[in-house]
Amino acid sequence: MEKNKNEMESVPRSREDDYSDEAIETRRRWIKEKTGVELKHMAAHSVTGKDVEGNIENFIGVVQVPVGLAGPLKVNGEHADGVFYIPLATTEGALVASYSRGMRAITESGGAEARLFSDHTQVTPMFVFRRTGEAAEFLDWVDANYDRIKEVAESTTRHGKLLKIDKYLIGRRAALRMYYYTGDAMGLNMITNASDRAARFIEEQVKPESVLFPSSMGTDKKSAAINMVTGRGKRVSVDVVLPEEVVEKRLHTTPRAMAQGFLTTVVGNAQAGTLTQSMHPANGLTALLMATGQDVAYVPDSVATITTMELTEEGGLYVSLYMPCLILGTVGGGVSLGGFREALEIMDCYGAGKARKFAEIAAAAVLGGEISTHAATITGEFSQAHNRLGRNRPRE
Amino acid sequence: MEKNKNEMESVPRSREDDYSDEAIETRRRWIKEKTGVELKHMAAHSVTGKDVEGNIENFIGVVQVPVGLAGPLKVNGEHADGVFYIPLATTEGALVASYSRGMRAITESGGAEARLFSDHTQVTPMFVFRRTGEAAEFLDWVDANYDRIKEVAESTTRHGKLLKIDKYLIGRRAALRMYYYTGDAMGLNMITNASDRAARFIEEQVKPESVLFPSSMGTDKKSAAINMVTGRGKRVSVDVVLPEEVVEKRLHTTPRAMAQGFLTTVVGNAQAGTLTQSMHPANGLTALLMATGQDVAYVPDSVATITTMELTEEGGLYVSLYMPCLILGTVGGGVSLGGFREALEIMDCYGAGKARKFAEIAAAAVLGGEISTHAATITGEFSQAHNRLGRNRPRE
Amino acid sequence: MEKNKNEMESVPRSREDDYSDEAIETRRRWIKEKTGVELKHMAAHSVTGKDVEGNIENFIGVVQVPVGLAGPLKVNGEHADGVFYIPLATTEGALVASYSRGMRAITESGGAEARLFSDHTQVTPMFVFRRTGEAAEFLDWVDANYDRIKEVAESTTRHGKLLKIDKYLIGRRAALRMYYYTGDAMGLNMITNASDRAARFIEEQVKPESVLFPSSMGTDKKSAAINMVTGRGKRVSVDVVLPEEVVEKRLHTTPRAMAQGFLTTVVGNAQAGTLTQSMHPANGLTALLMATGQDVAYVPDSVATITTMELTEEGGLYVSLYMPCLILGTVGGGVSLGGFREALEIMDCYGAGKARKFAEIAAAAVLGGEISTHAATITGEFSQAHNRLGRNRPRE
Amino acid sequence: MEKNKNEMESVPRSREDDYSDEAIETRRRWIKEKTGVELKHMAAHSVTGKDVEGNIENFIGVVQVPVGLAGPLKVNGEHADGVFYIPLATTEGALVASYSRGMRAITESGGAEARLFSDHTQVTPMFVFRRTGEAAEFLDWVDANYDRIKEVAESTTRHGKLLKIDKYLIGRRAALRMYYYTGDAMGLNMITNASDRAARFIEEQVKPESVLFPSSMGTDKKSAAINMVTGRGKRVSVDVVLPEEVVEKRLHTTPRAMAQGFLTTVVGNAQAGTLTQSMHPANGLTALLMATGQDVAYVPDSVATITTMELTEEGGLYVSLYMPCLILGTVGGGVSLGGFREALEIMDCYGAGKARKFAEIAAAAVLGGEISTHAATITGEFSQAHNRLGRNRPRE
Repeated sequence: MEKNKNEMESVPRSREDDYSDEAIETRRRWIKEKTGVELKHMAAHSVTGKDVEGNIENFIGVVQVPVGLAGPLKVNGEHADGVFYIPLATTEGALVASYSRGMRAITESGGAEARLFSDHTQVTPMFVFRRTGEAAEFLDWVDANYDRIKEVAESTTRHGKLLKIDKYLIGRRAALRMYYYTGDAMGLNMITNASDRAARFIEEQVKPESVLFPSSMGTDKKSAAINMVTGRGKRVSVDVVLPEEVVEKRLHTTPRAMAQGFLTTVVGNAQAGTLTQSMHPANGLTALLMATGQDVAYVPDSVATITTMELTEEGGLYVSLYMPCLILGTVGGGVSLGGFREALEIMDCYGAGKARKFAEIAAAAVLGGEISTHAATITGEFSQAHNRLGRNRPRE
Repeated sequence: MEKNKNEMESVPRSREDDYSDEAIETRRRWIKEKTGVELKHMAAHSVTGKDVEGNIENFIGVVQVPVGLAGPLKVNGEHADGVFYIPLATTEGALVASYSRGMRAITESGGAEARLFSDHTQVTPMFVFRRTGEAAEFLDWVDANYDRIKEVAESTTRHGKLLKIDKYLIGRRAALRMYYYTGDAMGLNMITNASDRAARFIEEQVKPESVLFPSSMGTDKKSAAINMVTGRGKRVSVDVVLPEEVVEKRLHTTPRAMAQGFLTTVVGNAQAGTLTQSMHPANGLTALLMATGQDVAYVPDSVATITTMELTEEGGLYVSLYMPCLILGTVGGGVSLGGFREALEIMDCYGAGKARKFAEIAAAAVLGGEISTHAATITGEFSQAHNRLGRNRPRE
Repeated sequence: MEKNKNEMESVPRSREDDYSDEAIETRRRWIKEKTGVELKHMAAHSVTGKDVEGNIENFIGVVQVPVGLAGPLKVNGEHADGVFYIPLATTEGALVASYSRGMRAITESGGAEARLFSDHTQVTPMFVFRRTGEAAEFLDWVDANYDRIKEVAESTTRHGKLLKIDKYLIGRRAALRMYYYTGDAMGLNMITNASDRAARFIEEQVKPESVLFPSSMGTDKKSAAINMVTGRGKRVSVDVVLPEEVVEKRLHTTPRAMAQGFLTTVVGNAQAGTLTQSMHPANGLTALLMATGQDVAYVPDSVATITTMELTEEGGLYVSLYMPCLILGTVGGGVSLGGFREALEIMDCYGAGKARKFAEIAAAAVLGGEISTHAATITGEFSQAHNRLGRNRPRE
Repeated sequence: MEKNKNEMESVPRSREDDYSDEAIETRRRWIKEKTGVELKHMAAHSVTGKDVEGNIENFIGVVQVPVGLAGPLKVNGEHADGVFYIPLATTEGALVASYSRGMRAITESGGAEARLFSDHTQVTPMFVFRRTGEAAEFLDWVDANYDRIKEVAESTTRHGKLLKIDKYLIGRRAALRMYYYTGDAMGLNMITNASDRAARFIEEQVKPESVLFPSSMGTDKKSAAINMVTGRGKRVSVDVVLPEEVVEKRLHTTPRAMAQGFLTTVVGNAQAGTLTQSMHPANGLTALLMATGQDVAYVPDSVATITTMELTEEGGLYVSLYMPCLILGTVGGGVSLGGFREALEIMDCYGAGKARKFAEIAAAAVLGGEISTHAATITGEFSQAHNRLGRNRPRE
């Protein structure tokens, strides 16, 4: 009996103001009583309860993720043009050092060229009808009513613009993949609201059997081929040509060995069945997104990437990285919170007008990691670096 | 000239002790001079420079990620048995509330059954020979020398055990997918060291043309089909039967609507080409791993999951979640650092002997998110919840 | 010496007319001398050498693939409306009987509704430049010169129409995915010619470092996610509602068991990592394409499909099949050759104006197989049917 | 009324002997009456009704697929050692010529080295229980009863041997992926029977809620990552080193251009999301399997392959092809039927003891196609070849 009662016990909340110091302290005391754990480090936060309202519920404190500064990284983009230092939040020893090494190689080679190719994010309501014929008619209706749908969707937002709708007919299910421009916000909440309003409008008009919104076809927070095909968020290509002497000095190997080893990487990825035709993009990307208050749960989407390494006619190494699904923002979400904002400011990427710049820098930073990591797997230095800089040393 | 010199400027480091307060402060001053940004929030850390040695280089401070407490969550596992409260680190408003709702539904239904099915992690050196015949002979050599390879690999570690080697012959490339048991550590550094030693030993013995280690076939930090097939890290299944009244009261819908909507989710995933046959596992999993000091860059690997929802004969809803690639640990890496350790302690999951318990709890927590998120997409409450609890409200 | 000479011996060819009876007979005699094999069955062909000119080189005869007739199959499409009998070429005992059973179930349930949703085929030249910036500029050039490119491409063909170009920027590589309408021809040769001409035109104008045409991104004869996303060839949905009594009488099971079993199929596909979210579409599709002279090597593309099975409110079974990549034609290629034409004529699908009709029938025929195969796996009759009708009987 | 009656009309069958000339003729007459189509070419078969019993139902005749002879192809395998000529059945003009060109290039370079790495085929019953804990217990039961299961399975077959069972626990579903050796038969019917018997035995012993057999996890006739990982059927690697002069003379390009172009192919495949990291393996493979009476519906499985092209130190081109899922046989199924047997005999691959030889030859033949096709896409000759040899010429 007693046991059952306890099993259902809720985390204490304050009806008046759940973000007050008192409400937070009450929860921490309750945890102490319940589990014996005193939250000393979690309680050591410079951001206040008020600061995190809208970012978290049942707030009990913070975890402090260490940040290291990598660079210099030279980027020759259309939006980012200059030398940057990159804050990376991680607990993996050697990560910052390795990315820094790659960034230096890029910078010494004249910098990474960067091009943003598209910039849109999708959300996908699905409508279920009785039969495929009915669903097909619905899709005709969507064509005929596109302007009204657009108007309804855009009425919810100042910044979001509906760009187009890709339609799918899968048996009795009709999916509307709605593409939006979201300005400098990552924008998922923005466009989810917009499509929610649109989906309700459509539902009233056409009375489907059921609606699923947002549907799995939106592919939030998963690796999905559809995003690789259409792009999601910022679609960016970056590349660099590393002269032979830079490869030798910084990476301790040769362009030829790098290019040959790359083919082994391709084979390994193919055998493993990865969507990602790259080395290790998630590593630095996660660290950068975590440092800057992004929604890190989008990393599975963002790591759908393609890296190439090729010998140039002149004996250098051409390296490119294609990131078709970079999901990030410089306004909204968590970016204005405490250290996240500071991290963005270090790169001059905080606030309006900075999202595309940030995307180009992010891709160039990950390019640095691709170069350095690959070199380490070629030369056999991968483990050594982790042993020298990391926590876990092997037994002798 | 001046410009080029500056472009190459390194982040300041101390040769004597780069983790001293002075070294850290020097870097922060340098950032201030360089960029004008004063790191106030980043500097407000209760973990010291010494604490983070081995976790980061060029340390400049921390980012504070807000943590909320979800639950209660009842787990009926072989390693975790009881009611738990789950710390989740995120800046996405509504996430903690939504997962908490799902956990409560599970708990009110008697808890989530959990089974850990396998527990091993792989790393994969690749050896390149001149021709496929030579590579095939090498694989015979590996069979004949398995015991020596095992001995060499295990000589580097107290806890890691080599379980088996899966061999691949891909043209002139031979890959050795080495399976290890890593105890309570996530263990990637441990087994990378072990296989590094083994790969060097093999290299000396058989003189291949080249070695790639660790190779892309290890699939670190990518979604990969091979891991779905073989399991990686902890392979866990959890399930629950939600009675009709719980579905109605907590989720505002019916088992039938949930089960029917699930099929739409399947269709959406298939159309999108996801490896993940689930709703949204990355969301809560990222938040849990971030709160507990795990290597969050493994989320792309871990979200290769399968969820099912089915109507039971008795009119309830059966829900299961299969997580074949849960990569986490309760010792090593970042888990002992400040709030991370506190987060693990809240669940009594810190330290030796706790990793499998933590895996079962993690899977059950994600199951809660699958239930709650799916219900919200069925009932149309998804946007409402985000608007009520999140930062970004739509215009009226 | 002698041996080396023989190793290089070519298959005999006639310079004057390699499709004459004499040339063919010479080759058959040469085979007899070389290998001792007399081609009796291969030589028993009613199609002549002249007939197969343009379809084959070094013609030595034919293989005779047995054809069985399945049906009746009622289709309620926009292009196919009526009852059809379906020729299937196979050597797998039980295939025709099983598909026939499924078709009968569909027909007794009122027929399969069919909708063709899109109709286009792509070919993709890739252009390689020095750097990503240069490739990006090229893509702007493509936009500015779209009309000229279209004109050049369409100058090669009476029927093919260039519909649009999807552009990709992947590092220094620019890909142009060119969408064409191909009328009633499968059309790959047609549009390969068109894009070849366009690619040469572009090459002359912009002088890329190299061109790959047709590139792997065209995805000919592979399963590819991109085709699932965009459709390739005919994109068709078909569905049917099977009343309970039909399921019981014809399939020896219940709608509920079928729907529940379907979820197990979904789980199995997800665990196996298939692109195909269906049962067995390749089986009947291959047989139908082989009977009608299609290019059977496109089956890997065409089996990227989605099947659903659901219980209806009225207790029946809703079944749908989505085939986004049906690659077939009713003119051109091998369709006019001997029995292939006869097979098409049986369905009134030979010649101009029939391709969409054929696509709807093909999808409905495969739907029959999905139903029958799935039922057999539910009831345990799968092996029995193969034992009764097939060649290989198990030992008692 | 009348219409409804006709809609249900069955294809005529003879109860006494449905493979008699009379029964077959009756069906053809019925088709003539029903559709007006006279099956002249279909009726011109040298194989008799009796011959095809066990391969087809409702037999109405044959389609004659033209066969061309490609080669010479030198193979240096463990099972195939010598020079072979390869029968290919297709209606795609230029295919035989193109593959022949690639085979000659291989032969002039000393032949293709071939290694068969594994040889097993799987079938996968799935068992559904109430909860995941129950399913986990079942898997323990399987371990404890492996010997009995093996005995029951093998009691149905003289040639099939159960090699091992891979177990999966996915929520309440337990899958047994049963690996068999099938001798020289493709063996799917053989092992389906064996596992059917085993599944019935298990069902009686453990009383699961339901059984699905064979389940989708068997992945028959789909491209599936699981097969890439574990191998299915014959797993074969072949490779060759083409000297520069052979590349220039036969392929009209250079090793360097081939190797560079290969990277573009990799990028295209990655962007398209193919499981196949190759050029065009389905093309010749389909033609070879069709010529030899194999089950062509397995091509989607078999095209999960990896090709590599690399410059050697000596300036030649290394090319390899990895085919982990070659599903073929030299006894059973359709291989003894008419021209199919003759086609196998041309390669001395008919009957017992020949399956591995055939697998090595098949892989080497496809390697020839990879080489020739890739060269054509590099040099721009792809369209030209099809125009010269094929049916569809572009307008001038």
